[in-house]
Amino acid sequence: MEPYLGEVVGTALLILFGDGVVANVLLNKSKGQNGGWIVITAGWGLAVMIAAYSVGTVSSAHLNPAVSIGLAAIGKFDPGLVPGYIAAQMLGAMIGATLVWLAYLPHWSVTSDQGAKLGIFCTAPGIRHTPGNLICEIIGTAALVFGALAIPSESNFTVEGWSTGFGPLLIGLLVFAIGLSLGGPTGYAINPARDLGPRIMHALLPIPGKGGSDWSYAWIPVVGPIIGGLIGAGVHHLLFAQKVIEKTTLP
Amino acid sequence: MEPYLGEVVGTALLILFGDGVVANVLLNKSKGQNGGWIVITAGWGLAVMIAAYSVGTVSSAHLNPAVSIGLAAIGKFDPGLVPGYIAAQMLGAMIGATLVWLAYLPHWSVTSDQGAKLGIFCTAPGIRHTPGNLICEIIGTAALVFGALAIPSESNFTVEGWSTGFGPLLIGLLVFAIGLSLGGPTGYAINPARDLGPRIMHALLPIPGKGGSDWSYAWIPVVGPIIGGLIGAGVHHLLFAQKVIEKTTLP
Amino acid sequence: MEPYLGEVVGTALLILFGDGVVANVLLNKSKGQNGGWIVITAGWGLAVMIAAYSVGTVSSAHLNPAVSIGLAAIGKFDPGLVPGYIAAQMLGAMIGATLVWLAYLPHWSVTSDQGAKLGIFCTAPGIRHTPGNLICEIIGTAALVFGALAIPSESNFTVEGWSTGFGPLLIGLLVFAIGLSLGGPTGYAINPARDLGPRIMHALLPIPGKGGSDWSYAWIPVVGPIIGGLIGAGVHHLLFAQKVIEKTTLP
Amino acid sequence: MEPYLGEVVGTALLILFGDGVVANVLLNKSKGQNGGWIVITAGWGLAVMIAAYSVGTVSSAHLNPAVSIGLAAIGKFDPGLVPGYIAAQMLGAMIGATLVWLAYLPHWSVTSDQGAKLGIFCTAPGIRHTPGNLICEIIGTAALVFGALAIPSESNFTVEGWSTGFGPLLIGLLVFAIGLSLGGPTGYAINPARDLGPRIMHALLPIPGKGGSDWSYAWIPVVGPIIGGLIGAGVHHLLFAQKVIEKTTLP
Repeated sequence: MEPYLGEVVGTALLILFGDGVVANVLLNKSKGQNGGWIVITAGWGLAVMIAAYSVGTVSSAHLNPAVSIGLAAIGKFDPGLVPGYIAAQMLGAMIGATLVWLAYLPHWSVTSDQGAKLGIFCTAPGIRHTPGNLICEIIGTAALVFGALAIPSESNFTVEGWSTGFGPLLIGLLVFAIGLSLGGPTGYAINPARDLGPRIMHALLPIPGKGGSDWSYAWIPVVGPIIGGLIGAGVHHLLFAQKVIEKTTLP
Repeated sequence: MEPYLGEVVGTALLILFGDGVVANVLLNKSKGQNGGWIVITAGWGLAVMIAAYSVGTVSSAHLNPAVSIGLAAIGKFDPGLVPGYIAAQMLGAMIGATLVWLAYLPHWSVTSDQGAKLGIFCTAPGIRHTPGNLICEIIGTAALVFGALAIPSESNFTVEGWSTGFGPLLIGLLVFAIGLSLGGPTGYAINPARDLGPRIMHALLPIPGKGGSDWSYAWIPVVGPIIGGLIGAGVHHLLFAQKVIEKTTLP
Repeated sequence: MEPYLGEVVGTALLILFGDGVVANVLLNKSKGQNGGWIVITAGWGLAVMIAAYSVGTVSSAHLNPAVSIGLAAIGKFDPGLVPGYIAAQMLGAMIGATLVWLAYLPHWSVTSDQGAKLGIFCTAPGIRHTPGNLICEIIGTAALVFGALAIPSESNFTVEGWSTGFGPLLIGLLVFAIGLSLGGPTGYAINPARDLGPRIMHALLPIPGKGGSDWSYAWIPVVGPIIGGLIGAGVHHLLFAQKVIEKTTLP
Repeated sequence: MEPYLGEVVGTALLILFGDGVVANVLLNKSKGQNGGWIVITAGWGLAVMIAAYSVGTVSSAHLNPAVSIGLAAIGKFDPGLVPGYIAAQMLGAMIGATLVWLAYLPHWSVTSDQGAKLGIFCTAPGIRHTPGNLICEIIGTAALVFGALAIPSESNFTVEGWSTGFGPLLIGLLVFAIGLSLGGPTGYAINPARDLGPRIMHALLPIPGKGGSDWSYAWIPVVGPIIGGLIGAGVHHLLFAQKVIEKTTLP
């Protein structure tokens, strides 16, 4: 049970910090209101870093079905654990979204913008364009999974992938960069659980004056990241699997 | 006496840099005026990092009564030292606030906004809502203490908690993240001494044109963080205490 | 072939993240629109860090003809590999620019500003002034190559230049700093492939409502960085080549 | 001669990046214009980091007369080297300021604000108030020198003060924090050479439409930092000199 618990806790932290920063920027009378894109992307990057540091040694900190599926596809993760990991990630995301709702409790009723209230929980594209939105989520998630596999190595003081040593810091910086560079069109879900779990909570929680949960869009941030994760893992496997990186250690 | 002195010095640094960045953003004719939420949260995160690096090896850098009480509750800190630590933290916070008043000496009289002048010393909520404000401080402080316990490990090059190795850097990034993601509703006191000590100095110092010190709110950033610290420490204890993390060391 | 492949992959990542962040800030209806200089410079710095971490152990992560030529000039890189490295860097830059065009697919047609659309792919000066623009690119690239040689050392935990250990993080921070401090006049190409490769793709790709590719300026961000790289490498060689730095290692 | 040369090169880099970021934010038609306080403070923090990494093993990277004098006063630096260090720092600062003037060559004539043009080279207070400005520079520099002595230790992977290992990164973050938190009233010279050297170049260089060099203020960012450096070094000496920090090393 321990790795599953790790994924629950880690994904809850991810969404607490990730959806939290969007709430801070979008809700009325919040001190970070209109804080800008640098605030949102720094917050999400740190959310990943904190979650990965907290549970990295417990569950390897996938925190994302696209990562679990991508790793399983290239033989780096036991496929039998994938369903449990995804369930844990979904549960964690729903817990995290609930904590954000609680933390910002008095602010929902003073914010009239229904799109803003939904946008705290899940993503919506700047321009609705099914192929364009899918492509953007695919490229963003491919960059995430490729980078998560390519960046860590012993020469970077990350002993076992992104979940130990400086791995969580580097993966946080990678997600910061994805937000800065590839987050513009769709708000970079790049993680099915990050989007779907909080979207479900948006539908369930008693949020004053909320609108619909935009279910017609909900499949894109699920399908796009899964395709992207497979591509990112596959490209890494093709390019690097045969290469034995010279292990460079500290002197 | 040495650990107590460490807490005095560390908390003074914390408040010098922390209240200082708020002064920079809020006071008229200051060069950082209207610098935005990214300035305030980066400043507070760095304040924690600097304070923890400076006294980490002296006092373990609690700098926060909610940390001392939370650690004592789960057996990680000698309860007999708690009163002295809290007194030292309060004294340090009052020294730090006084230094900020001095550093910005000519700017108080040219700033007419009494709420801004108070907001440099202590927190005030965006919306006054006792349960909501309490919950927000509880969640923020629980995230702080849980993270401070969960993040450091030998595999992250932090040998003895957050006070050595990369611990101060990581704890600073954690506080940066709490500000970005959970600081919107109440301004994230998440530390009774950080709020009460400077509030006392706001009442005592000869600040031109100051208003009241908002004593009716003052209990919330004391009680909320203490509850939150206990919850954060307790959750960590329940989830991780039995787990022996595999020690991963540098190759 | 492996080092060339590394340069293709690394430069593609560099441009995906680098041109991507400019697209996010400049294109209409993008979530990072008007995110400001801090967003652009952080994005480019992280782009370099990610690319260097990903291929540092494969190709030493030059990612820049000015680096390859500068290193060859002072005997730190095999001159016979320079043409292949430059070709690989150009190919990678063109791939990266194409991915940015795809990631932001629906946004090109809703953005009328032709200068903005070109500015995502390549640089343009704030003021057209041939000697001034050349000097600025020379100083920026000299700072890049000098810093890339001067910063890493065993005492900084970078075992083999900027491509291992903390090298990629430090080189990313160096590029972040160059953008903040020296990027104002010309938009800091500081890399012929970064500018020319995407400029070619701007001319080739079917971008709705695009204008010309500003070929009259295109030689400056090629020639300036090459001169600057030679100066930076030469100054470092003169100042430091004879000095045997005391190797300070971890205790 | 080598340490002196290191101080020249390091201080030139410091001012190239430091004055450069102010030029970027203040000059008309510069791409970073109005980039805000986060841009300026990040730029100066990185300037210190880059300079300290580049020459840390050569000259210990003082880069600041207030540091050299403060260290000499507590027996941590040979007093006989102080005059040479200060001369080297002044020369480096003047070289760096000249490079900034060159890098932004076409922008001086299109900027009419004489205060902005002077403010790129040296500091000016938000409010002219001799005791207040002096106190602010004293507190800021005391924080700098105290922090530079208190932060590094073997347990933080900085083997010989702030000039090796993670020292330059941490000292850069310290200066970033000083700018964010204490830079509001006077623009944080905290370094006599950083202010006086470029001020001299402002007077000497042929800058179109420049005004006076504000010599009546020039003594404050010289005297204040020297006093602050002595206080910071002295306080550290009193508090920590007798304490033998337990050496915590990597496992």
